[in-house]
Amino acid sequence: MNQVSLPDKVLQNTPVNPAHEARLQIRAGKIRGNTAGLAPGYVQGNLMILPRDLASDFLLFCQRNPQPCPILAVSEPGNPMLPSLGEDIDIRTDIPSYRVWKDGVMVSEQPEIGDVWRDDLVSFLLGCSFSFEQALTEAGIPMRHIEQCSNVPMYRTNIETEPAGVFHGPMVVSMRPMKPADAIRAVQVTSRFPRVHGAPVHLGLPEQIGIQDIQRPDFGDPVVVKEGELPVFWACGVTPQSVAMAARPPFCITHSPGSMLITDLLNHRLASF
Amino acid sequence: MNQVSLPDKVLQNTPVNPAHEARLQIRAGKIRGNTAGLAPGYVQGNLMILPRDLASDFLLFCQRNPQPCPILAVSEPGNPMLPSLGEDIDIRTDIPSYRVWKDGVMVSEQPEIGDVWRDDLVSFLLGCSFSFEQALTEAGIPMRHIEQCSNVPMYRTNIETEPAGVFHGPMVVSMRPMKPADAIRAVQVTSRFPRVHGAPVHLGLPEQIGIQDIQRPDFGDPVVVKEGELPVFWACGVTPQSVAMAARPPFCITHSPGSMLITDLLNHRLASF
Repeated sequence: MNQVSLPDKVLQNTPVNPAHEARLQIRAGKIRGNTAGLAPGYVQGNLMILPRDLASDFLLFCQRNPQPCPILAVSEPGNPMLPSLGEDIDIRTDIPSYRVWKDGVMVSEQPEIGDVWRDDLVSFLLGCSFSFEQALTEAGIPMRHIEQCSNVPMYRTNIETEPAGVFHGPMVVSMRPMKPADAIRAVQVTSRFPRVHGAPVHLGLPEQIGIQDIQRPDFGDPVVVKEGELPVFWACGVTPQSVAMAARPPFCITHSPGSMLITDLLNHRLASF
Repeated sequence: MNQVSLPDKVLQNTPVNPAHEARLQIRAGKIRGNTAGLAPGYVQGNLMILPRDLASDFLLFCQRNPQPCPILAVSEPGNPMLPSLGEDIDIRTDIPSYRVWKDGVMVSEQPEIGDVWRDDLVSFLLGCSFSFEQALTEAGIPMRHIEQCSNVPMYRTNIETEPAGVFHGPMVVSMRPMKPADAIRAVQVTSRFPRVHGAPVHLGLPEQIGIQDIQRPDFGDPVVVKEGELPVFWACGVTPQSVAMAARPPFCITHSPGSMLITDLLNHRLASF
């Protein structure tokens, strides 16, 4: 049904929603893997699906740690639709690749999750740095990991999150090296986006947050911090995933790294002012 | 007349304007010297008075360099009143101490300037860091120079201002050492106050802006940058004074250091949002 509506819309000159179109392609299995660069300008979200009995603690964890865990939407239990994030989103089919976990161990990676869906599952969609990176790019601030087409370097820190129920653990941060004036501008730009990690949590002095070797990230790829640059650190959406996995929930589902939910929300609309 | 109105107001329970009261005391010669701490919460301004034929270049200089030279008000030529800054302000009498300069050399320091007033003089009132320091204090960010009751350390930098006519020269910055998280918060807080220097112009890496020894400021007093802190630099209101003096104008008047115009504007009202 939905796939059929695409050419109709185009023929009728109905305004096309690139995010919706991308999701339809994903749902049809025509797009797989990384979503970076798809539907430019639209918010992409990290996925965490948990059984209802863990969901309220996880919600509380996110509420207490809004910088690493900025909630875009939480579904009703058992309901795979996310109407606040976009037209006709079905979380069981609309992400290119999922990971299914049992007791904290990944048991499968699959392109849809209808076969493992349950009536007690709650979907959490969390903001991601793609949104603020668009704002930084538009502000003329270069980012090295984008220049070198690699993943942003990420580090486990000594910054403890606020625990909630079974969920606790260190904050993970992403790092972007910048000239001091760009770092100041980056604080201004990203402060306007609290729903996608907001302002940096730290800059300069990596050892102060427990990072011993900036050239050896725990996740992602290393980038060089050049002379005259400061490392600038943002709370990272890997935090909730690593915290949730450490709690070894009996069952959970996440997106595969880099394979996100494309929503109908515009990044610009997330600006707080 | 004005001095007499003070007790009347108090007796009549008219709301008292502490800024106006302070100016009346200053005008009457009852307050001399430093204005720091007087009329807390009210904007204080730096003064630069120039003859009309230099004023348009100086105005252009300020327009081109808004971070070091944030204009609060410019008078009409020859008119000593500044109605946009407060009730009954007479710039000839309402600052505790003035410096009169000829050809870039100070020729007198005096408590009023009625005797040297001329019909071609234009007064420039420029924002000062007292305003954003109130905002930083209210945000719970300690400042070392305030803790140690000294003047903020200031440095000539290698950052060139945008020249205008005869006015050109390096930017002067003030420095406040801060923990990284406080530095990030300070960027957020002071970004809201573009009319009083706004966001920092630099942080960390002092050598990058031509500061060889952070312990030897060019103006003010040194403060220690402790381990785990970054030096944070703001454009400083000493910049327009040093630039104007370097141009050796045939005649000009400034306030004496620390002896500012107290206006009726509330610091909070300067917030841009």
